[in-house]
Amino acid sequence: MERVDGRTPGQIRPVKITANYNKYAEGSVLIEIGDTRVICTATVEDRVPPFLKGLGKGWVTAEYSMIPRATGTRTAREAAKGKLSGRTMEIQRLIGRALRSVVDLEALGERMVTMDCDVIQADGGTRTSSITGAYVAMILALNKLVEQGMLEKIPVNDFIAATSVGIVNGTPVLDLCYAEDSAAEVDMNVVLTGTGRFVEIQGTGEEATFSRDEMNQLLDLAAAGIKELIKVQQQVLGPEITAKIGQVRQ
Amino acid sequence: MERVDGRTPGQIRPVKITANYNKYAEGSVLIEIGDTRVICTATVEDRVPPFLKGLGKGWVTAEYSMIPRATGTRTAREAAKGKLSGRTMEIQRLIGRALRSVVDLEALGERMVTMDCDVIQADGGTRTSSITGAYVAMILALNKLVEQGMLEKIPVNDFIAATSVGIVNGTPVLDLCYAEDSAAEVDMNVVLTGTGRFVEIQGTGEEATFSRDEMNQLLDLAAAGIKELIKVQQQVLGPEITAKIGQVRQ
Amino acid sequence: MERVDGRTPGQIRPVKITANYNKYAEGSVLIEIGDTRVICTATVEDRVPPFLKGLGKGWVTAEYSMIPRATGTRTAREAAKGKLSGRTMEIQRLIGRALRSVVDLEALGERMVTMDCDVIQADGGTRTSSITGAYVAMILALNKLVEQGMLEKIPVNDFIAATSVGIVNGTPVLDLCYAEDSAAEVDMNVVLTGTGRFVEIQGTGEEATFSRDEMNQLLDLAAAGIKELIKVQQQVLGPEITAKIGQVRQ
Amino acid sequence: MERVDGRTPGQIRPVKITANYNKYAEGSVLIEIGDTRVICTATVEDRVPPFLKGLGKGWVTAEYSMIPRATGTRTAREAAKGKLSGRTMEIQRLIGRALRSVVDLEALGERMVTMDCDVIQADGGTRTSSITGAYVAMILALNKLVEQGMLEKIPVNDFIAATSVGIVNGTPVLDLCYAEDSAAEVDMNVVLTGTGRFVEIQGTGEEATFSRDEMNQLLDLAAAGIKELIKVQQQVLGPEITAKIGQVRQ
Amino acid sequence: MERVDGRTPGQIRPVKITANYNKYAEGSVLIEIGDTRVICTATVEDRVPPFLKGLGKGWVTAEYSMIPRATGTRTAREAAKGKLSGRTMEIQRLIGRALRSVVDLEALGERMVTMDCDVIQADGGTRTSSITGAYVAMILALNKLVEQGMLEKIPVNDFIAATSVGIVNGTPVLDLCYAEDSAAEVDMNVVLTGTGRFVEIQGTGEEATFSRDEMNQLLDLAAAGIKELIKVQQQVLGPEITAKIGQVRQ
Amino acid sequence: MERVDGRTPGQIRPVKITANYNKYAEGSVLIEIGDTRVICTATVEDRVPPFLKGLGKGWVTAEYSMIPRATGTRTAREAAKGKLSGRTMEIQRLIGRALRSVVDLEALGERMVTMDCDVIQADGGTRTSSITGAYVAMILALNKLVEQGMLEKIPVNDFIAATSVGIVNGTPVLDLCYAEDSAAEVDMNVVLTGTGRFVEIQGTGEEATFSRDEMNQLLDLAAAGIKELIKVQQQVLGPEITAKIGQVRQ
Repeated sequence: MERVDGRTPGQIRPVKITANYNKYAEGSVLIEIGDTRVICTATVEDRVPPFLKGLGKGWVTAEYSMIPRATGTRTAREAAKGKLSGRTMEIQRLIGRALRSVVDLEALGERMVTMDCDVIQADGGTRTSSITGAYVAMILALNKLVEQGMLEKIPVNDFIAATSVGIVNGTPVLDLCYAEDSAAEVDMNVVLTGTGRFVEIQGTGEEATFSRDEMNQLLDLAAAGIKELIKVQQQVLGPEITAKIGQVRQ
Repeated sequence: MERVDGRTPGQIRPVKITANYNKYAEGSVLIEIGDTRVICTATVEDRVPPFLKGLGKGWVTAEYSMIPRATGTRTAREAAKGKLSGRTMEIQRLIGRALRSVVDLEALGERMVTMDCDVIQADGGTRTSSITGAYVAMILALNKLVEQGMLEKIPVNDFIAATSVGIVNGTPVLDLCYAEDSAAEVDMNVVLTGTGRFVEIQGTGEEATFSRDEMNQLLDLAAAGIKELIKVQQQVLGPEITAKIGQVRQ
Repeated sequence: MERVDGRTPGQIRPVKITANYNKYAEGSVLIEIGDTRVICTATVEDRVPPFLKGLGKGWVTAEYSMIPRATGTRTAREAAKGKLSGRTMEIQRLIGRALRSVVDLEALGERMVTMDCDVIQADGGTRTSSITGAYVAMILALNKLVEQGMLEKIPVNDFIAATSVGIVNGTPVLDLCYAEDSAAEVDMNVVLTGTGRFVEIQGTGEEATFSRDEMNQLLDLAAAGIKELIKVQQQVLGPEITAKIGQVRQ
Repeated sequence: MERVDGRTPGQIRPVKITANYNKYAEGSVLIEIGDTRVICTATVEDRVPPFLKGLGKGWVTAEYSMIPRATGTRTAREAAKGKLSGRTMEIQRLIGRALRSVVDLEALGERMVTMDCDVIQADGGTRTSSITGAYVAMILALNKLVEQGMLEKIPVNDFIAATSVGIVNGTPVLDLCYAEDSAAEVDMNVVLTGTGRFVEIQGTGEEATFSRDEMNQLLDLAAAGIKELIKVQQQVLGPEITAKIGQVRQ
Repeated sequence: MERVDGRTPGQIRPVKITANYNKYAEGSVLIEIGDTRVICTATVEDRVPPFLKGLGKGWVTAEYSMIPRATGTRTAREAAKGKLSGRTMEIQRLIGRALRSVVDLEALGERMVTMDCDVIQADGGTRTSSITGAYVAMILALNKLVEQGMLEKIPVNDFIAATSVGIVNGTPVLDLCYAEDSAAEVDMNVVLTGTGRFVEIQGTGEEATFSRDEMNQLLDLAAAGIKELIKVQQQVLGPEITAKIGQVRQ
Repeated sequence: MERVDGRTPGQIRPVKITANYNKYAEGSVLIEIGDTRVICTATVEDRVPPFLKGLGKGWVTAEYSMIPRATGTRTAREAAKGKLSGRTMEIQRLIGRALRSVVDLEALGERMVTMDCDVIQADGGTRTSSITGAYVAMILALNKLVEQGMLEKIPVNDFIAATSVGIVNGTPVLDLCYAEDSAAEVDMNVVLTGTGRFVEIQGTGEEATFSRDEMNQLLDLAAAGIKELIKVQQQVLGPEITAKIGQVRQ
């Protein structure tokens, strides 16, 4: 099978992560996966949401948005419509949950990390790219706290990255671009840790169903793709910071 | 391991589906799974959403809500707050997607089926109970169209039902009640067809992760539970209507 | 005159009140008047609205909603539209005001009782059924506070119940069902106490007017109907709780 | 009993209606009742709301608002808060309903009359003053249609006016000013026609109740007050227009 | 050139300012400029917005609205639409900024002055009339604080007033009425102090441009017009209060 | 005077415009002025807003937004708050008005051009940078229509660009960065055409005033700065497209 952009079924698109893309944020990256581009910024504040007040632990949350022409036809701004779409809410809940799964919130202390993922160009996989990029931006911000002596260690147990897999014309493929995503019978987003454990799996057959066998093939593809993504994350962070991930568990 | 309500890990709670619970809706049920109770109504209208106008196919959509004291402490009404929460949007998107996966939208014709799932008491598993109940209400409504001669066959390929599984205190268990759900390290919602194919899988480790092995154990539990739920659906619908499901595929 | 459902002008529909319908609420009922069914729950909280802070008295408030297929054709959710209709606001203000008229707010202490009236099937008289049912749910909740030793007496002076009366095809009738309500020239909602005093009267001629004589006939019908409703309330509450109503006045 | 402003129990405040207060509206008045001042404008448009399309009849609707310093302490704008209060909705529904009760909507034809009642100073009785003033503004607008040959007759059956009555310190009084309204045990708004028939009665005991006897005394006061108000309306409209009211019934 | 209402290019319309138009507000006027009429009220409160808490200085802010029939065709209420238009926000920001430019916020102390400008009839120049009128209402309110001994001096450095100028059919004109404003190629709003300094200039060519020369001609017209407006302000305030403006600078 | 970043009073910051920054939009740029960076995209659609239907002319409109960490401290998303701020509305109205001043809307035909200006980093002058960048993106989009034969000429009369000027510590300076903007006594935004005519001038003294002399000095600085910006626009567009601007007037 020939993919729309000439890739093999198990091949991810070119990945580029530019660190410190924004001059104000405590941590930031521009992540580019194929033609998908997302600016991820981390904001650290000395406060927690009301439901955590006085509990001695922190919080990580995420917001997601697309600029109107991130997409082929213009998408109306949610700010102009006055409310977030269900899709946006679902995605920002997913990003926040994924990041929290590897953060030691007690070790973080009464701090709130807000990850903003702003898609400036969308070509499939914006939610998984957001997770992969936001993870790096979050580590950069937390490492700054360590360097400033406000934290002893980076309060993160493991790496995480995410990708999408799906069945397109009957073939399981890795890292769907928009054209593939629109045509996919099955669409699955997978978030894994550096040690290969699941953080999140969301598989859905839109007007279709899939077998357990197919699911297993998709998971194998995802695991391979995420391994590559984590390598890129580690290159961008460099060996010194990479070595600090997971220290909090000991 | 003793479960909080004395069940074995692989045991679902008592299930009761009361058909035609509402005198106005084209199809309706009250579904009770343990202490969780959801009123599901199906509304059939001769119109489609704007994006389907003139395409000769129909649509199935869902809305979900809880009355304020469905929960242990009162939950403020979304109508009073003026917007739907991310959780609500996520759930109603899930229910709609799950139902559409087995509906032949072309065979449905230019009709819109709106499923309303109103939780009047919540004790875990409200979204999966909603799917299981809404499926029956939808079939009742579509069968009425067949009886009225407006459709030749029920335009549905297969049964679907849903349940939640999770890891609680290290043990994989089926059909979590609220107390278990709050304590679960891993939480997974699974929607399967009558023929055992996946419609949707959403597994998440909130502040935790899980292995592929654990995932497989959870899926086995879910498959067994859903088989039981579909048996109840078939009893409520009766052999005659049950026989009409899947005819559209031939 | 033959009424649409065969009743005589002065006859109310069958009334059934199921106490403790909800397992979480401090007090709850399912009230059924003909085909109208409303779930009423009482939530007691140790707080008061801002305008009562520190004044040593409590508050009773109400919210009202209908599930979409409570009605013959589907009514769009107010939560989805993002705002309450004028009708809903008017009704919930009426319910709250009616209940407060017999509550000794000083004796209640700095507590807030929130009554939720969720109509799951509507066949006329939903606002008056809500008042009649909510009264019982409120008493059940307040009695629980007495039993728990948090209140000495039930801080309620009298019974209240409500019904609708109207002029249909020139004839004054009691307890209008939806078909009658739609055709009525005059529509009046009356709330009375157990001792026959007025709590609220709202009479309106939609595109019509009425004479003082007609008003008096309507009030006579209402008084008779409410007497019957209060009898049902007393049966549901039982003689022991019934005896505790009105003690606060002495 | 001495009233706060020296009036006798059955005395209304000075009433002044200035016709054609606004240069753009099809009909307009400034009504002053004591220190309460309301600008009422009538807008006539050749369209009807969607639910009346093609039925050959018209509609009358009303909107109500207060400028922030209409009141003793500044009331936040509903436009700034982004939603109408329940009180506002209740009032504008009442005004519209009251006006419609005497309008022959078929004779009006497919036209929409929107009454805007903007309170620029509030000292009690703003909703009843709005009805009394809006009636005159509406007649002025409809008479203009007659003069322009677009209507044969003014499609209005009768006069209407409204006032408030209440029990203050145990005494039934007419036309409550704000100080009385705040202290009233019972508050009743009454809308009557020129022939003394009821259009609307809304009586409420806020944290109190009232007997049927008391209600009758209040209604007698209201009837007397409304008679005076209608006299003022007729003076402002003049004998020629006054003579045209009620022609539509013949 | 003949202007639509017979004025010469440099002539302003008749100006009338009625002081103390509202019985509740700390300061109030009705300003009439030609057929434009605006009620301006000043509310003084002992609080400041959150961003000024504890800084020992006060704030002046403004809100602006039009009643629906202030305009030739009815303008829908922003309260009904649930949000403020961009035009309204722009105008209220302008009024607040203009007034603050001459107020010594430290001398005002921790107080908030809210200016409400409600247009009851609009015939061009509503934003500039609002500034001119609100200035007087604000001075009246601040003078009351001086008289009550709560402030030593009126904390205001100078007079301000505003007018509009524009190019209509190629001719620069002063104080545009609505008909002129709609036809203007260039529209400019100017706010000046009593000593002729600029507070604000907003010039815009809607679908047109203008030269620097033309701008200078417009500014000369504006300066002359504003001098006249300030004379009217001083007459309304009287010599005693007028003498107190500017004392705070010494 | 030494400026905070070492510039002379009349020096603008480095300007860089990257054309075709976005792969989907009909025209797009990334404009960087100092550390301010704005993505501007032009969307062309074959429709017009309702008020222009059937009039044979087109429309140009603009929307403006900042990502949360465009700023030093995180700014909450307007989409999350559910409404646009007054500042945003003011800016997007300004951008649209400025662009329309040089577009021949008749020559554009029944088309709508929507300019989206998304600030990804803000260091002062975001609204003027948006105008300068959006102009280029709009020309790129319109030129594409010419190349596709859908328009004969680019329907634009002239170049436009914008800059801010202000008085900082008593000195008039050009192109304020954020640190200067915060400290400025007077702040002025100026939009000029390539032939030096005014499109818009907005000068404001926040808690200050300015003389006509000072205004003239600011305008001289702005004129010089805008000349430089238009040179950059012309370099980016190239001589061929540049030559096409202004043809529509002949």
